[in-house]
Amino acid sequence: MMMHNFNSGPSILPKEVLQQAADAIHNFNGIGLSILEIGHRTSWFQQVMDEAQSLVKDLMQIGDEYAVLFLHGGATTQFMQVPMNLLPQNKTAAYINNGIWGNKAIKEAKLFGNVAEVSSTKDKNHSYIAKDFTVPPDAVYLHYTTNNTVEGTEWHQLPNAGDVPLIADMSSDIFSKPFPYNKHALIYAGAQKNAGAAGVTLVVVRKDLLGKVQRAIPTILDYRPHIEAGSLLNTPPVFAVYVAMLTMRWIKKEGGLGEMEKRAKERADLFYNALDTLPLFKPLVAKEDRSLMNATFVIEDSAKEQQFLDLCKQNGMVGVKGHRSVGGLRLSMYNAMPLSSVEAIVELMKDFQNKQ
Amino acid sequence: MMMHNFNSGPSILPKEVLQQAADAIHNFNGIGLSILEIGHRTSWFQQVMDEAQSLVKDLMQIGDEYAVLFLHGGATTQFMQVPMNLLPQNKTAAYINNGIWGNKAIKEAKLFGNVAEVSSTKDKNHSYIAKDFTVPPDAVYLHYTTNNTVEGTEWHQLPNAGDVPLIADMSSDIFSKPFPYNKHALIYAGAQKNAGAAGVTLVVVRKDLLGKVQRAIPTILDYRPHIEAGSLLNTPPVFAVYVAMLTMRWIKKEGGLGEMEKRAKERADLFYNALDTLPLFKPLVAKEDRSLMNATFVIEDSAKEQQFLDLCKQNGMVGVKGHRSVGGLRLSMYNAMPLSSVEAIVELMKDFQNKQ
Repeated sequence: MMMHNFNSGPSILPKEVLQQAADAIHNFNGIGLSILEIGHRTSWFQQVMDEAQSLVKDLMQIGDEYAVLFLHGGATTQFMQVPMNLLPQNKTAAYINNGIWGNKAIKEAKLFGNVAEVSSTKDKNHSYIAKDFTVPPDAVYLHYTTNNTVEGTEWHQLPNAGDVPLIADMSSDIFSKPFPYNKHALIYAGAQKNAGAAGVTLVVVRKDLLGKVQRAIPTILDYRPHIEAGSLLNTPPVFAVYVAMLTMRWIKKEGGLGEMEKRAKERADLFYNALDTLPLFKPLVAKEDRSLMNATFVIEDSAKEQQFLDLCKQNGMVGVKGHRSVGGLRLSMYNAMPLSSVEAIVELMKDFQNKQ
Repeated sequence: MMMHNFNSGPSILPKEVLQQAADAIHNFNGIGLSILEIGHRTSWFQQVMDEAQSLVKDLMQIGDEYAVLFLHGGATTQFMQVPMNLLPQNKTAAYINNGIWGNKAIKEAKLFGNVAEVSSTKDKNHSYIAKDFTVPPDAVYLHYTTNNTVEGTEWHQLPNAGDVPLIADMSSDIFSKPFPYNKHALIYAGAQKNAGAAGVTLVVVRKDLLGKVQRAIPTILDYRPHIEAGSLLNTPPVFAVYVAMLTMRWIKKEGGLGEMEKRAKERADLFYNALDTLPLFKPLVAKEDRSLMNATFVIEDSAKEQQFLDLCKQNGMVGVKGHRSVGGLRLSMYNAMPLSSVEAIVELMKDFQNKQ
């Protein structure tokens, strides 16, 4: 059966990336050893790390004022690592609460300093993006989540932070479109959506921001020694870095972020048009704030919703169930998703509607 | 060319584990999706996690008083995570300083409480294990490194800690022999030697030890929420957990830890006998403390040492250079290392000796 992978993350990867990753497990670059068996301080792996870092700078169009790190720990670790490195105990960081992940980031930041929650969309279950708010001008940074994987909203403009440095959790829309990366002080993303497989976290940080907190930072959580060591402070997740490198190489080869955005819009237009046409399926998110990556929706009759999910399963469509915290349905449509998979589920939705 | 992989980590893995890992990248368990593309909250991955945890308990012969976690971050993260979770600020933890890694663990522990360095082998470049020392009876734990990857020493008995709970960094000899795991309060290991590929860290902890420090612990660094979430607190390094599971399955199938020890002894006997016979090659470590996993040695004439390294390279023997902090030569001989690779390098050493 042809599979359609709508998983929210870990999620679909390009077929040729999977092929190259499997080949490298047998024999990495023809050296006679597996990528899983080579030391991280070999020139073999150094080339992978160099290319991965350079691809990030290339795709993001950022210069040497930024450091590119591939770290362990997932975006969840960044929830605490960011304030540990950047928020002095007696200062304030501004946070936007647009969903479950931003909310978790806020909880961790409070362990390190003051948090000003400048905007919250809790009142409507985070079904929209609030663009009107005030950031205290003395805040050391403004943290926001560019795309809310669980709730299905996405920022389609930059939040207005004045002169306050912007920090973005881009776990679910990184590399999905041209984006003003260079307007940010720090960007992080778990790789397991658009940047590769689970097990590595991309952190891009403007170096001049570091070294301004007084607290003692454990070595492994301090960005500075990672930067000094070229992201090889301890054994990195070698294979996950390799898959991230392959994935970025694929993005570039396919035409870069402009092409990724074009494809994302085609997929999203196709899906949201169907969603707005078929009365059985109800969108959850305000039209202008809809995510191109994660579309959330419901069938109000829960028996029918289950029936539709069963039908998806029978047709090889996986990952259509919404996040356990919100329920309903969700379609994740990352870079590697072919338009044909969206066409397939739209056909299924139409059939399902017609049979009512 | 036939390759002989003496890398110290990431390092050699069983051929069939590599084959299974590559197969799963194409099609995991015949489901039509790659292991890199499946959600960590699917029943597919839950089965992997369940089997991995159960294999750890089986190989270690430990009961439900222990929790088994597969975490991000490497053993280096455990250097700070252990004291953060277990060492109250006004109490003392005892540490044995037997080498570079133990020394790093000490440095991080000092950020959280008092450290009593009860034993140090710095006086002789960590070329032996000091067994005679006193642990303060009120120490909250004694931390030691069971096998010193860089220096080539290994504990062949338990350190005498009295009633003080034992904590072991077993990154380089875990699963290499039957071992009194159940005499330990906490054991951790980066997977990239005997337990799989880089990118996941095994932590086994006796649950009754937790919750006794007052400090605020960031969620991702607190063992307790990881335990509550069954090691699925955040997106785990899915593929690295899978490779660890495959590796443990292989260990069990081959005959378990007894068989691993038998093979390790065969390899080490063969190598150390040659080392003690060939005058050109000098061991670095006291005989009774030699590691079965990592053998360190030198050729005193550095030009000849380089000549020997070049010869190794020409013969497909990789990873023979010693760690950058100590120099010299090192042979890492983990579980997956066939005796034939040790035979090959011993032959090369004999030839090299004969040509002097």
